[in-house]
Amino acid sequence: MQRFVARLRQIDGDLPFWQRMTSERARDAMAAALLHDVGHGPLSHLFEGAMPGASKHERLTTRILLDPDSEVHGLLSEDDPSLPHRVADLVMGVHELPYLANAVSGIFDVDRCDYLLRDARATGVTYGDYDLPWLLRSLRFEPTEGNVAPGLAIDGMKGITAIESFLLARLFMFQQVYFHKSTRAAETMIGHILRRAVQLVEAGEPIPARLPALEAAAAGRAPTLHEYLELDDQVLLTAIHAWEEAKDPVLSDLCKRLRARALFKTFEVGIETDVAADEALAIAVEVARARSLDPAYYVSLDRAIDTPYPAAQASSSAQGPAGPHIESTSEGRDLRVIFPDGRARDLGDVSFILARLRGQTLERTRLVFAAELRDDLRGALLR
Amino acid sequence: MQRFVARLRQIDGDLPFWQRMTSERARDAMAAALLHDVGHGPLSHLFEGAMPGASKHERLTTRILLDPDSEVHGLLSEDDPSLPHRVADLVMGVHELPYLANAVSGIFDVDRCDYLLRDARATGVTYGDYDLPWLLRSLRFEPTEGNVAPGLAIDGMKGITAIESFLLARLFMFQQVYFHKSTRAAETMIGHILRRAVQLVEAGEPIPARLPALEAAAAGRAPTLHEYLELDDQVLLTAIHAWEEAKDPVLSDLCKRLRARALFKTFEVGIETDVAADEALAIAVEVARARSLDPAYYVSLDRAIDTPYPAAQASSSAQGPAGPHIESTSEGRDLRVIFPDGRARDLGDVSFILARLRGQTLERTRLVFAAELRDDLRGALLR
Amino acid sequence: MQRFVARLRQIDGDLPFWQRMTSERARDAMAAALLHDVGHGPLSHLFEGAMPGASKHERLTTRILLDPDSEVHGLLSEDDPSLPHRVADLVMGVHELPYLANAVSGIFDVDRCDYLLRDARATGVTYGDYDLPWLLRSLRFEPTEGNVAPGLAIDGMKGITAIESFLLARLFMFQQVYFHKSTRAAETMIGHILRRAVQLVEAGEPIPARLPALEAAAAGRAPTLHEYLELDDQVLLTAIHAWEEAKDPVLSDLCKRLRARALFKTFEVGIETDVAADEALAIAVEVARARSLDPAYYVSLDRAIDTPYPAAQASSSAQGPAGPHIESTSEGRDLRVIFPDGRARDLGDVSFILARLRGQTLERTRLVFAAELRDDLRGALLR
Amino acid sequence: MQRFVARLRQIDGDLPFWQRMTSERARDAMAAALLHDVGHGPLSHLFEGAMPGASKHERLTTRILLDPDSEVHGLLSEDDPSLPHRVADLVMGVHELPYLANAVSGIFDVDRCDYLLRDARATGVTYGDYDLPWLLRSLRFEPTEGNVAPGLAIDGMKGITAIESFLLARLFMFQQVYFHKSTRAAETMIGHILRRAVQLVEAGEPIPARLPALEAAAAGRAPTLHEYLELDDQVLLTAIHAWEEAKDPVLSDLCKRLRARALFKTFEVGIETDVAADEALAIAVEVARARSLDPAYYVSLDRAIDTPYPAAQASSSAQGPAGPHIESTSEGRDLRVIFPDGRARDLGDVSFILARLRGQTLERTRLVFAAELRDDLRGALLR
Repeated sequence: MQRFVARLRQIDGDLPFWQRMTSERARDAMAAALLHDVGHGPLSHLFEGAMPGASKHERLTTRILLDPDSEVHGLLSEDDPSLPHRVADLVMGVHELPYLANAVSGIFDVDRCDYLLRDARATGVTYGDYDLPWLLRSLRFEPTEGNVAPGLAIDGMKGITAIESFLLARLFMFQQVYFHKSTRAAETMIGHILRRAVQLVEAGEPIPARLPALEAAAAGRAPTLHEYLELDDQVLLTAIHAWEEAKDPVLSDLCKRLRARALFKTFEVGIETDVAADEALAIAVEVARARSLDPAYYVSLDRAIDTPYPAAQASSSAQGPAGPHIESTSEGRDLRVIFPDGRARDLGDVSFILARLRGQTLERTRLVFAAELRDDLRGALLR
Repeated sequence: MQRFVARLRQIDGDLPFWQRMTSERARDAMAAALLHDVGHGPLSHLFEGAMPGASKHERLTTRILLDPDSEVHGLLSEDDPSLPHRVADLVMGVHELPYLANAVSGIFDVDRCDYLLRDARATGVTYGDYDLPWLLRSLRFEPTEGNVAPGLAIDGMKGITAIESFLLARLFMFQQVYFHKSTRAAETMIGHILRRAVQLVEAGEPIPARLPALEAAAAGRAPTLHEYLELDDQVLLTAIHAWEEAKDPVLSDLCKRLRARALFKTFEVGIETDVAADEALAIAVEVARARSLDPAYYVSLDRAIDTPYPAAQASSSAQGPAGPHIESTSEGRDLRVIFPDGRARDLGDVSFILARLRGQTLERTRLVFAAELRDDLRGALLR
Repeated sequence: MQRFVARLRQIDGDLPFWQRMTSERARDAMAAALLHDVGHGPLSHLFEGAMPGASKHERLTTRILLDPDSEVHGLLSEDDPSLPHRVADLVMGVHELPYLANAVSGIFDVDRCDYLLRDARATGVTYGDYDLPWLLRSLRFEPTEGNVAPGLAIDGMKGITAIESFLLARLFMFQQVYFHKSTRAAETMIGHILRRAVQLVEAGEPIPARLPALEAAAAGRAPTLHEYLELDDQVLLTAIHAWEEAKDPVLSDLCKRLRARALFKTFEVGIETDVAADEALAIAVEVARARSLDPAYYVSLDRAIDTPYPAAQASSSAQGPAGPHIESTSEGRDLRVIFPDGRARDLGDVSFILARLRGQTLERTRLVFAAELRDDLRGALLR
Repeated sequence: MQRFVARLRQIDGDLPFWQRMTSERARDAMAAALLHDVGHGPLSHLFEGAMPGASKHERLTTRILLDPDSEVHGLLSEDDPSLPHRVADLVMGVHELPYLANAVSGIFDVDRCDYLLRDARATGVTYGDYDLPWLLRSLRFEPTEGNVAPGLAIDGMKGITAIESFLLARLFMFQQVYFHKSTRAAETMIGHILRRAVQLVEAGEPIPARLPALEAAAAGRAPTLHEYLELDDQVLLTAIHAWEEAKDPVLSDLCKRLRARALFKTFEVGIETDVAADEALAIAVEVARARSLDPAYYVSLDRAIDTPYPAAQASSSAQGPAGPHIESTSEGRDLRVIFPDGRARDLGDVSFILARLRGQTLERTRLVFAAELRDDLRGALLR
């Protein structure tokens, strides 16, 4: 956001004064960028999908920002009493200046720009790298008429490659990392573990480490903010460690497998098997039963979905129950490209690649199952 | 090619002995990789397109390799008298082992792998970078039956991203560098210069520096091999320097503009103007005449064409008269992807991106014209 | 180690057969590289220095490797019953082939080669980066006479820069990361915390989370191997979390400061103050007492020492009580450099930089103290 | 210089207004940075040393800047009639603000900062890379008293590593590239060629391509500015090509060797031979005579000298007759390091490495000789 704001300040000289990146707006934008994910539960998006009755993290972010008792609220209010509300709005993509709203939540918002580079570096998947300085230099304001505040646009042919490369880097990270079979298998297992733990608590069965937020879920009530905030990655993973000693054989077994990295295996529907998803699941349920494994915890279907370049007026992505980086952006219009003579065109109309990817959805459907079912399933699915 | 051969040797253990990467084959492949472009005239592909009656560089490569008087022929023959012929065959993509033929000339031959990385580094266009080590590690041999020699294949989901990333890096380099408007404008100008010079020689008009290969062209005969080899980049550029002093005003003017980097300007048809290509050219011819510029040398159409991922049985690319890196590969089949259970699928069927790019052609058509025509043309073309 | 072994195999062809890198030796070397640090307690070197009576981690590595009940012993023995002993010897730098012993423990052993690159990447301190492929390509075997097994040597002028660059990268990482004031301050605090916790257990005072290895230390006995292995980073950090609620105000306060990143501050003796170390400590003790802080836990001296390029026959480095990466190598001789005509010279005699760094010791002595003492200390020390 | 100016503007807020980086000063500094080397003859520093009677390039830069007929003078004067003089002063390191003078010519002036990164990239010698953004962020102004304009200083421990790393990168580039034996051998050969050509012209012997600047040198007069500017790399290399056909056997032979990359060989005195430099030369003269080679052109001594970190009040570097990047800076004082409490110390007193390199001179003395003399010389010198 710092680099984004610095770039906007280089190019906002032609805007009417009231549309420029003032110090106040820069501060609001920085705060929104820093705080937009404070509502996340443990293990980021995962928890939200896996925990019965969990709120969307955006709603929790808002709740934290607006709660007069939260430390964050206190610090923001000190600066300006209306700051918590303005930041909460920005986090939801609401702002009088479209270019600022889009920077917090949009097709190439600063969050995406940031996590791609960090995840690419951390995972060693260089495909996720892209040329951020070039992308920033490609930014322009869209020409507007009258008093209409401009959105962001991309500068000519040079900028098109910058945005293409960014969107493809993101697609590669989804293909190679976020939708990787091991990632999805581990997420599936954690989902099963949480579901099982809640079920046991509901049934009144004792489990080694009791988590207040989990008890709330089991009791059918929303956790208090304090209960929610206490449940960080550390606490959840320590609980999973402790649950290895649970009396319930399913909970104990799932936790032991996860911690020993004995991850579930997968068959990708349509690639590794020609059997349709529902039929494959039905087969797997039978195979699990024949092996005396509870199908509810040892086989499942996982659908991962992303639209790398949404057609205008469509939402950008949604990745099913346990997807990382679920984005709720709904953008009304395509990004505009500005050519030297001032002509503006829709990005999807002038990009060779994006014209062919526009509105196309990447979908990975996998049968996820305990490793010992593999041979039986191979026989049944690779006919 | 060294790295490619090293990789093949890691994986050829399962092949029958006669299909493996022997030392002899490695030597042949190294020689072919080193020598495949010795037939290039000055300024690489440019000369071939710009020079009236010039042979394809591949034909000249063959001619040099097989000429008993060439230094290269002598060195190869010393090692093995049949080596020049084998290398010449390999350069044309002919070899008993399809995987070796493809490595010299194919969808991701070592030449492409090499020039993309070097050009990306030299131009600073990081979009052209890709993960070569990962691509190499993704290589497998296609499973074959009986005594059929295998082609190369790609290993599972991991390999798909490697080849996608490579093909997109190549596309980005075409978009950003090889098809860049300044590159194409300069190439157009050099083409005009060569055409004018030949014409003057044909007409018996004296020009400052006379080049034997040019005289041959003017006389309607193919240059001797010696004449051709003497004409390197250095000699051609020195001649263009000298031609600044030519009496012919067109030749002199074009050379001065080129050396002062006063490049022709462009309008991209379909992007920067909605006027159709032929009509735009007709308008430009009129505009040039009105300005007393010879339309034959001061306006022209430039069409740059590339098919980043050819559909099976189609040729991979052809870039019009003055295109760099013209590749004449015709591959019969798509690359195969091998999944863990041994299933093989066509790359274009399992890649999200390539399924959408298969057989699609990138085309940039530009009106190229002297800078002083710009304002008149803008008025006429941007109606 | 994989890359090192691969390089040795490229150059061992001229050695007598019994001195080459056989598959068995490669396996031993890989095992030693993987296992050389299994003896580390939580937070690596830190624990060893901070825990009263703790063994050197190398001794614990040996104990684990040779313990018939350890999982690691079982796996190695399965392959070859004498493997655990051979690996334990290698970890201690003992092997019939000097070049292999040095690769596990020496001036540029694979551990150093590895941690520098990983730490440089993880911390973003690019100074710690060096050209590993070049360094590997520079490796040669020292010429030897008779049946003497060769050590490693460096190839001519090109290799000198490779090893200079490596040693300087290591020095930069010590200066910028391992000896960073915040790193050392945090380590000092953890040392105080552990010492206090052991003391409280000795005194029979209850503390929230009891760790068996700590109880053993308090009881004056060595922990069992099981007790030691149970104490990983996770368990220790969770205990420190729990100790925030300890009744002992010192333990509780130190843990709260550490977790809130309220790190102790430092003055570097000789740079930031001209007062001698012991005198500075005496002053700080008085200042702490005047503020009612127990000087035993709120002020201390920290000495960090490293010899980047030891003179021959000296030990390479030793970093005081809490130093990271303590290396106990004692090398009898300097590395040799081989010139094209076969002459061999000592590295320190032919390197411009290393001749000037040979045997020189980097020393950082710092007064470490609670932040609230800063102003008083500044007055007293910056006279 | 752009990045340097941007950094100065971030930190000049505390300076009195008249000492700040105004737009005018920024323009002057940009012009000086762009133009400081326009006086270079062909092949940069080489020509200056090799050409009898050639002026120092700095003197020629001044001459070009101040010549009312030069294009550069015209453009600068258009902006401000006194600009050529101010730029000429800056190029010589003369400016009322020491920090600006040092930026154009000093221990880490922008020229050094720039050529190291470019040469490191172009040669692939990653040792020459350093962290420029970190170095820029480390810059501070030295605290001064009264109206004294400040010099640049470095910020604390963090900045020390930045400047150490920069100076070592420079040292590595000298060791690996600028002082490389092949570089020095080629430079020696070009020096011999130029000397021979001048001698032939002096003697009235015809040579194929005549260069006005060379004729001037032969006639004992300084070339006119026009003659000098006409002699670019291109023209000189084309002449060397043409001189392959010279009647003089020495000139012809030297040119053929150079163009065929049959470079002279070297023995480094003190490393590859223990014979002293003068004695080694005397032996080589005899060996050349015995082989009927003119010793004046086929053997010579080459001394390359650089002081990576000059002691205060000493000049930074001087590299003998044909050295690249000869720098004439004489700095009165060491760079200062500013610590958090405002204390300033000399860099050489607080840097572990630089304290040991201060005033130390890297010297490479090599016997340079035609390759066919190698075996005879080896026998005589490697006794």
